[in-house]
Amino acid sequence: MAYRPQLTQASRPATFPALALDETGSEIAVEIAGEHPLTLYVDKREIVTLMTLGAAPEALIVGYLRNQRMVGSLEEIAAVQVDWETEAAAVTTRHGVENLDERLGKRTVTTGCGQGTMFGDLMEEFEHLHLPDDAVLTEATMYALLDNLRHYDTLYKRAGALHSCALAQGSEILYHVEDVGRHNAVDAIAGLMWLDDIEGADKVFYTTGRLTSEMVIKAAQMGIPFIVSRSGITQMGYEVAQQVGITLIGRAKGSHYLLFTGRHRLRK
Amino acid sequence: MAYRPQLTQASRPATFPALALDETGSEIAVEIAGEHPLTLYVDKREIVTLMTLGAAPEALIVGYLRNQRMVGSLEEIAAVQVDWETEAAAVTTRHGVENLDERLGKRTVTTGCGQGTMFGDLMEEFEHLHLPDDAVLTEATMYALLDNLRHYDTLYKRAGALHSCALAQGSEILYHVEDVGRHNAVDAIAGLMWLDDIEGADKVFYTTGRLTSEMVIKAAQMGIPFIVSRSGITQMGYEVAQQVGITLIGRAKGSHYLLFTGRHRLRK
Repeated sequence: MAYRPQLTQASRPATFPALALDETGSEIAVEIAGEHPLTLYVDKREIVTLMTLGAAPEALIVGYLRNQRMVGSLEEIAAVQVDWETEAAAVTTRHGVENLDERLGKRTVTTGCGQGTMFGDLMEEFEHLHLPDDAVLTEATMYALLDNLRHYDTLYKRAGALHSCALAQGSEILYHVEDVGRHNAVDAIAGLMWLDDIEGADKVFYTTGRLTSEMVIKAAQMGIPFIVSRSGITQMGYEVAQQVGITLIGRAKGSHYLLFTGRHRLRK
Repeated sequence: MAYRPQLTQASRPATFPALALDETGSEIAVEIAGEHPLTLYVDKREIVTLMTLGAAPEALIVGYLRNQRMVGSLEEIAAVQVDWETEAAAVTTRHGVENLDERLGKRTVTTGCGQGTMFGDLMEEFEHLHLPDDAVLTEATMYALLDNLRHYDTLYKRAGALHSCALAQGSEILYHVEDVGRHNAVDAIAGLMWLDDIEGADKVFYTTGRLTSEMVIKAAQMGIPFIVSRSGITQMGYEVAQQVGITLIGRAKGSHYLLFTGRHRLRK
């Protein structure tokens, strides 16, 4: 059985009721997305405060530590304890985090929603990544995946103000995570993959959000050769995708898409 | 004449050409949004790296310093020098930034795109804000503003992957800023307001982005009593809006909207 750190199960309700007046002057009850501060402490040291929906806080914290490269493997994490009363996530590591001071000293505020900060020189590390060139996605499978994703749109449609990410194998959705920040959503997926010991090499990463540089870097770090988004792409997202050789598909909706990079992996 | 720091005028092109394959297999030329790292140095000390479209970098830096409360007035800024070759924005202040070490020690990664980090205890400071209760926006004026904003949609529609913010007086748009991050866009507007000595009390702040807590806090800090967004709202955005008494209108599109808080300022 795969190793699991000691974990709480402290998810928060996804939506909260609120009242609003619409244009007809009617008072209507609406559901709005949760947004909660969660301060991460690693071995009792304060690292950062994330604003999150709180649907999968333990996976979020594990994935945050993974994507920030603060830990090299799940085994280094002994425990993740989320307590909403103190709005704190306490992580205990087995051997501490290497060069923590140096990492915390260098901040990049990315275009990311919800987690737009990278500590350290992540941008430089992706040069050593290699994604499998023999992974294949057919257009028909991608369309089937987009169709399957439509069933998950409910919370997004109901509450708005959310981004969602998914991990798929072919057209089958393995994980689907929503958050007020798209970076929380991608980090939670990275956490779930570690917790369930799932590899990225034959997977597809889907996001409702825009394909900025750090989204591409995070997917590549997870070893996933395909990124599909319903949104557009930035120049740096495009450049990073070219460098790392990932297959990047934007504006994917219904039967439309734009294939930007890594064209050899998408088949008609 | 209003005081102006010494400023470069170093804007970057908004879009860059790229090639993509569409679903018919045709290779098409697309324009994608720029995304550039810009590292802020205040009095030679490295503060943060922002990822930005680069359309209005000097206003962005001024507004960033304003919204992070690193400077209390424009007069404290002697110069802002943006150099894209070194990807650096060098700010010279007149008397330094108070408690800079302490501020840099406490990070909140917000749900913001592009600038989702707040240093220090911004969340606690907004309790002292007061917005004018006699400011009025009529529904007809708001509809006219939404109509005027449609003409600004071109870059967003062309390149995607962008957020935009605007400052309006009635239905007249004074500033319109796009960026890969919505927080860059709101900060650039805060910078322009300072540079042109414009008050917020009779203005409307518009954003394409979601109404999360820190968007509401930033608008309130600028003294603007109205926020209009085409997107949804989060729970904390709603709570902060209630506390600060701002008029918050979400899901504003065409002739639809939801009036969440500060109802007394919107008139039929």
